Amino acid sequence: MNPKRCAACKYLRRRCPKDCFFSPYFPPNDPDKFAYIHRIYGAGNVSKMLQQLPVQTRAEAVDSLCFEAKCRVEDPVYGCVGIIYFLQTQIQKTESLLAKTQAEIAVAQIKHSQAQNSEFM
Amino acid sequence: MNPKRCAACKYLRRRCPKDCFFSPYFPPNDPDKFAYIHRIYGAGNVSKMLQQLPVQTRAEAVDSLCFEAKCRVEDPVYGCVGIIYFLQTQIQKTESLLAKTQAEIAVAQIKHSQAQNSEFM
Repeated sequence: MNPKRCAACKYLRRRCPKDCFFSPYFPPNDPDKFAYIHRIYGAGNVSKMLQQLPVQTRAEAVDSLCFEAKCRVEDPVYGCVGIIYFLQTQIQKTESLLAKTQAEIAVAQIKHSQAQNSEFM
Repeated sequence: MNPKRCAACKYLRRRCPKDCFFSPYFPPNDPDKFAYIHRIYGAGNVSKMLQQLPVQTRAEAVDSLCFEAKCRVEDPVYGCVGIIYFLQTQIQKTESLLAKTQAEIAVAQIKHSQAQNSEFM
């Protein structure tokens, strides 16, 4: 038994072989990362998803899966889709503020031109 | 055998009982909805997640799970987290454009005040 089992093997209470598939993505010092992923997707599904990806993209895939799983644990109804709703609302608000500000600048420019015209009359 | 099996039972090639757990959320006319969810989470995990939720929130949970699963199928590395990155970038761009526009309005107002002052001199 490897005393420094990866977080996945520790969670699954199994031996962590030298060529452990999960080991590069689930270091022993971050046990939550695997716990979230296991709770939402299951170890088998995650392993299947990762195996279908090129090796160099797997770490990023694990990070995004972990983010989604954590969001789902924290918000079981909306998961990270709740964040998407929130960001879309924020964009609408900022765009509407931008349109209002652009309208104000147009009014200010008209006033400025009028002032200049009256100066030369 | 119910000839109008729900999409979940049809996908899992099983009988759809009258009190089918999945039936309210997976109508027969939308087979992809269950296919995406099954591919990413597995039927057992989804059923477990839904059972932990109050009945009135389950339809929304299914919709958000389905959205996440579809995103993951279409973008296996980033899933819907890719959308979050994209929206955050869009917010930064809009906020930066807003700041630029607000600075322009301040300059226009100063010019307008200066023009008014020179008018009265």
